[in-house]
Amino acid sequence: MNVEVIAIGTELLLGQIINTNLATIGRALAEAGLDTYRQVVVGDNLDRLSQAIRQGLDDSDALILTGGIGPTQDDITREGICAATGLEMEYSEDWAARLEAWWAARNREMPANNYQQAQHPAGAVLIDNPRGTAPGLDLAVEGKRIFAMPGVPAEMELMLHGHVIPALIELGGGPAVLRSRVLRSYGMGESKVAELLADIFERQTNPTMAFLASAGEIKVRLTAKASTIEEADALIAPVEAAVRERLGTVFGADDETVEQIIFDALQARGWTIGTAESATGGMVAAALTAIPGASNYVRGSVVAYATEVKEQVLGVDTETLGAGVVSEPTAIAMASGAREVLGADVVVAITGSAGPDPQERDVGTIVIAVATPEDARARTLDMPGDRERIRTYATTAALQLTRLAVTGEWW
Amino acid sequence: MNVEVIAIGTELLLGQIINTNLATIGRALAEAGLDTYRQVVVGDNLDRLSQAIRQGLDDSDALILTGGIGPTQDDITREGICAATGLEMEYSEDWAARLEAWWAARNREMPANNYQQAQHPAGAVLIDNPRGTAPGLDLAVEGKRIFAMPGVPAEMELMLHGHVIPALIELGGGPAVLRSRVLRSYGMGESKVAELLADIFERQTNPTMAFLASAGEIKVRLTAKASTIEEADALIAPVEAAVRERLGTVFGADDETVEQIIFDALQARGWTIGTAESATGGMVAAALTAIPGASNYVRGSVVAYATEVKEQVLGVDTETLGAGVVSEPTAIAMASGAREVLGADVVVAITGSAGPDPQERDVGTIVIAVATPEDARARTLDMPGDRERIRTYATTAALQLTRLAVTGEWW
Repeated sequence: MNVEVIAIGTELLLGQIINTNLATIGRALAEAGLDTYRQVVVGDNLDRLSQAIRQGLDDSDALILTGGIGPTQDDITREGICAATGLEMEYSEDWAARLEAWWAARNREMPANNYQQAQHPAGAVLIDNPRGTAPGLDLAVEGKRIFAMPGVPAEMELMLHGHVIPALIELGGGPAVLRSRVLRSYGMGESKVAELLADIFERQTNPTMAFLASAGEIKVRLTAKASTIEEADALIAPVEAAVRERLGTVFGADDETVEQIIFDALQARGWTIGTAESATGGMVAAALTAIPGASNYVRGSVVAYATEVKEQVLGVDTETLGAGVVSEPTAIAMASGAREVLGADVVVAITGSAGPDPQERDVGTIVIAVATPEDARARTLDMPGDRERIRTYATTAALQLTRLAVTGEWW
Repeated sequence: MNVEVIAIGTELLLGQIINTNLATIGRALAEAGLDTYRQVVVGDNLDRLSQAIRQGLDDSDALILTGGIGPTQDDITREGICAATGLEMEYSEDWAARLEAWWAARNREMPANNYQQAQHPAGAVLIDNPRGTAPGLDLAVEGKRIFAMPGVPAEMELMLHGHVIPALIELGGGPAVLRSRVLRSYGMGESKVAELLADIFERQTNPTMAFLASAGEIKVRLTAKASTIEEADALIAPVEAAVRERLGTVFGADDETVEQIIFDALQARGWTIGTAESATGGMVAAALTAIPGASNYVRGSVVAYATEVKEQVLGVDTETLGAGVVSEPTAIAMASGAREVLGADVVVAITGSAGPDPQERDVGTIVIAVATPEDARARTLDMPGDRERIRTYATTAALQLTRLAVTGEWW
């Protein structure tokens, strides 16, 4: 079964928002063992939308559409489906009543605009939208299937997992399993990783191998196709072992994020954590607290952006600061000071020059220190790119050095 | 001139990374007044890539490709162009020498793999990549133009703005100007905004109107086409005035982010700012410090994740905390305490229950307080969605309430 995805919205073509739905839908299809060969983005234009739907129906077994089913006048997905398939548009009192009930349950009056959401191509079934006003639709046509969902990610996701993926799996009659294993490596560039794995790559059939780079982390993805999860896993296992041995820098797999590995190590040692941030301005704390259950480990953070905050809140002494705000002694003093202030066992501290103007050191100089109950060490790094890139890479580096410290590997 | 964009990478189809390049390229094309009607994503598969390139060449005047030109074995964009156009693959000693020079300039030896990047479809011109090892390519074929760039966003962007967009503008012979104005509104839902603007929307021709929702902010985009920037702006101005009057909730336009408006207000009053965060864990501080020049205004932040940090670092008294950690008195005490600790004139404080497990109050209850030299007020909000969504919406709300406080509008 081959499923094509079409995202609809001129704002996507104009780049005014980043399309996260394509990734969300792609991941859900892959996990369900459903093939997807093409994703298409078109604007709020009836001709081009209808042409994309027509081609998608011709080239695939099922179509997933997102966007363009809201209550506003530029929402033309319903019309696009009719134009591509020749189906009539129908107005359903039942759909209107369900929309009214949605608003009534929230003690609000339904705006007149929203009645247009009771229109749908003949034969479509309504998909409930608990999180928003736009219902989705599920349509069997030409022996194939079209699903239309809202473009708002939170609303789309709920429908995707609650209705669309189960319907596709049922339609496929229990598909082959596509199973991916992502090995996460840090500390080695992409081309070096590829070179070390070149012969495995050349021989690949099942599993296949691909490389992904993101903010300093290199991921090696192995994807196997089989009739059961167990068979797929058995195909992946020996290749995974070889990759781990060759690289020596694989720190986790799949959802084993660096944050989760840090928390597991903290759990094992009964430690808590905090951060002391200058250049990253709270990004490391935000990353750690993004993980559910963070409150078991994270005490807090001091973002010491102004030099006086480094001195007065973190207790970094004037002499150390005078010798260099962006320096290893300052980073270590920030980490040690924050351990006291926050009552945390482990603190990672980041100071540096993120640009656009140099602050004491060249733009891209980032100093990271980690202090634990056992030791405190720092490292100076040189990051390429602009402010956003430097802050993002510095956040990754801070988390990775924290991992090495809390697992006792250090550097 | 109509430019099609094709992004290449199985990792995109499988949803293992989010495709930000489509948005970046879309924005750059729109700003240059170049039309784009379709974006396509295909995997690392030679047949399907070559088919997409073939169709893109047939349907558009120029093609922008990203991804698949790296040094690894799954990088097949060069082959895809040859397959689609019938051009021969050439190996260029000159390209190889330029790649070697890139590595030599960084005192590193070029890995053997990277020599494959000296291969290119016959007639292609190399585009320099100062940020990475993969050169781009620029090819005139069939009276049209194909540009291939790396998939790594930072490398792609530099080539896009440095080479591709200028080449396309030259090719188009000075195109019509497509000018967008984005009006940013906060405090009113998307369907209400659409209802208030319904008659303007119905009458739209030039400028066109579209609505975008992102993390609580609703954007109204007006896009005008004309032969000069001045003409386009004159078309937009009266519609913009009408939208601002109807809604009454427009706080900024285009790049006037809420962060920038806050900084401008702080500048006018000679104030500095800090944050005291629990549920958002540093996200508000990270957002403020993302703006270049933040160090002129931001003193720092205390992320008080553990209750004891609220008490010991921020000085929130036991009685207040006992009456409710997620409460307006606690939020105001956090903000007031952080003003002292950080030496900041203004502090925004956030406490709440982000889930997945409730913390004292229902998941989604977020309390935000802002303290300034003049006043301190709090507001309790109820946010729908999961942990990530709640934290993101809470960050937006915190910034918006801060804006109202520092501009003296309050609530």
